[in-house]
Amino acid sequence: MQIAERMQGVTGSAIRELFKLLGDPAIISFGGGNPAKECFPKEEIRNIADELLRDKADILLQYGATEGYLPLRKAYIEKILPDLGLSAELDNVLALTGSMQGLDLICKAVINPGDVILVEEPSFLGALQTFRVAQAKLVPVPLHTDGIHVDELEAIVEEYRPVMFYTIPTFQNPTSWISGIEARKAIARLAAEYDMLVIEDDPYAALRFGGEKLPTIKSFDTSDNVILLSSFSKTISPGLRVALCCGNKELIRKLTIAKQGSDTHSPNLNQAIIAEYLNRDLLPSHIKEISAVYANSAKIMTDSMEKYFPEWVHYEKPIGGLFIWCTLPDGWDAAELFKRAVERKVAFVTGAPFFVTPGKGNNTFRLNFSAEPEARIRQGIQTIGELLHEMNAERK
Amino acid sequence: MQIAERMQGVTGSAIRELFKLLGDPAIISFGGGNPAKECFPKEEIRNIADELLRDKADILLQYGATEGYLPLRKAYIEKILPDLGLSAELDNVLALTGSMQGLDLICKAVINPGDVILVEEPSFLGALQTFRVAQAKLVPVPLHTDGIHVDELEAIVEEYRPVMFYTIPTFQNPTSWISGIEARKAIARLAAEYDMLVIEDDPYAALRFGGEKLPTIKSFDTSDNVILLSSFSKTISPGLRVALCCGNKELIRKLTIAKQGSDTHSPNLNQAIIAEYLNRDLLPSHIKEISAVYANSAKIMTDSMEKYFPEWVHYEKPIGGLFIWCTLPDGWDAAELFKRAVERKVAFVTGAPFFVTPGKGNNTFRLNFSAEPEARIRQGIQTIGELLHEMNAERK
Repeated sequence: MQIAERMQGVTGSAIRELFKLLGDPAIISFGGGNPAKECFPKEEIRNIADELLRDKADILLQYGATEGYLPLRKAYIEKILPDLGLSAELDNVLALTGSMQGLDLICKAVINPGDVILVEEPSFLGALQTFRVAQAKLVPVPLHTDGIHVDELEAIVEEYRPVMFYTIPTFQNPTSWISGIEARKAIARLAAEYDMLVIEDDPYAALRFGGEKLPTIKSFDTSDNVILLSSFSKTISPGLRVALCCGNKELIRKLTIAKQGSDTHSPNLNQAIIAEYLNRDLLPSHIKEISAVYANSAKIMTDSMEKYFPEWVHYEKPIGGLFIWCTLPDGWDAAELFKRAVERKVAFVTGAPFFVTPGKGNNTFRLNFSAEPEARIRQGIQTIGELLHEMNAERK
Repeated sequence: MQIAERMQGVTGSAIRELFKLLGDPAIISFGGGNPAKECFPKEEIRNIADELLRDKADILLQYGATEGYLPLRKAYIEKILPDLGLSAELDNVLALTGSMQGLDLICKAVINPGDVILVEEPSFLGALQTFRVAQAKLVPVPLHTDGIHVDELEAIVEEYRPVMFYTIPTFQNPTSWISGIEARKAIARLAAEYDMLVIEDDPYAALRFGGEKLPTIKSFDTSDNVILLSSFSKTISPGLRVALCCGNKELIRKLTIAKQGSDTHSPNLNQAIIAEYLNRDLLPSHIKEISAVYANSAKIMTDSMEKYFPEWVHYEKPIGGLFIWCTLPDGWDAAELFKRAVERKVAFVTGAPFFVTPGKGNNTFRLNFSAEPEARIRQGIQTIGELLHEMNAERK
């Protein structure tokens, strides 16, 4: 059987593979990016689905438009974009079967093999995989605890003339770090100056429990070269697979054609559930609620880390998002820590796969704080802390 | 803005574009492939969805496995495949966000630019578009009223050594023609002899209202080179976007990796609805019901065609599927007929886009009989018939 060149050497996502492990309920998992199941608006979704299937089944069960379910696209324009400092027309907006599909469609519509895509280092594993399958050349932009450094980015853009820059400016995955307002302005400026497409992936920004809200890069976009990906996976439900993107009309048109050949259209019922949820104005109070839950989970995790982790483990306390990024001293191997942790029924994700540069990030790992209840967060962190102390003792 | 080479010259699907036209309820449409809205099992889906969101919301609203929702994969293996003469293990089976995604993932995992894919001529528009975006070289295999002719297929396989052959053996789109049992055996044999992947796309076979059921090509597959695409779009609901595929484990694994980067996983709720529908054994009686509905619609359409169409319009009476394929005498232009029909509020799809060979099929068009009520079928066919007579008078 022939395997396409683009798939040579592409292995499954480490996180997706981890899912199988998570079938074992005894394992305390800080590995995925799962929202807490307590944070799903279950009753509202059930009620909305029932009303939709009572009143609109003829439409929702039928084929739909590739562009998306019209009330969802309208709700996105009216209920989501204004809060991000954005206005849009219908032709700027496309519904997606999850944000990941946005990355796939952008690659299909824009990227030729060998094209340069800039990615933050470290960056979201799923995006890296999609870009690799698109046979792009990935060039890393160092990410710092205070986000993208403009001088570094500009020098890399100048050197590589990339087709695209992929960024998660707020509560980045895997780091939860934030690029500040000056970086955002500069990214928009560079998009214009170098005719560079910027993908602003924004799934976490709503989950803020500290600091001040920042404007989107897209809100500084004068050249229409920024495409915003908006997901409801972290705020409402990942299992429904509903996201949207907002970008220039020519690009959206090309993405729509690419989507025809990808899944024809996103499922109507799912889009309608989200549309109705937005139109009933349920999202703002829901986000307030779940942000408080995640603030608490993050605090329990960092309190436990302070208590159990050696003081030489480096991390920032998050003020939003779902993750805590940990760096061990040089020479440490997070994969060994992972192996031992799994033996003791605790899972997380090692950091190296989030890096583009070979050999980088072996001393890093990512902890997710949203998916486990308090007691298990404490227990899991204590276990990892004990292992770190053990491994340190062995090194001496 | 850069547009990828693969998208150069790829325009939107004519049928998808037609959808916009269909926003006008005054237009009688024989254009799409929409099931009749009366044929959706609305109450059952509503009840099942409600129970699922009551009992399993924690699981269904959460991230799911890329391979698919386990109860759906099991139900496919237990309730669908045996009737097709097939048995499979879980690793042979992947859930899809509609069959179209299967084509997209197969291209991603298998096809390099320039590879030869054989397609029936005429063939499904959406597949042709997906293969073109994959930058494959499409080589046509002539399709006849009695399906694929083995000698022709074998000569083409011998000449082109294709990576893949795409076939819809039962109630083909756009023709509704059927490849017989000998052709099916031969296709499976050629798959083995030439190590050629065969995509057996099977969305219509269940909608049979005449003749005898035929075994799948996959049931003759000794080399594990046939992948079967099974859709619930025509039998239960296209709007839910649920399909599955069954193929060899190595390929399914590659498709799963490709799917990680396409939409992470298919929506859980939709998969669970179909799983539950299958597990309640609702499908067999439902298929019996809707096949009777479509038999009646097809008869009304062909009765009207006999009454109103000139005798020089060629077509076969369908015994299943959703379409009637019409051929006008040489030199006729179905696009002109289409233009005039739309002016008189009747739509269908012209045949040329279903052909790979440039200039071929200009005298053909496709009628769908499943989407309109009886009176509108009669009225629309009468209108087309009148136009054909008018146009014929003009030619003299």
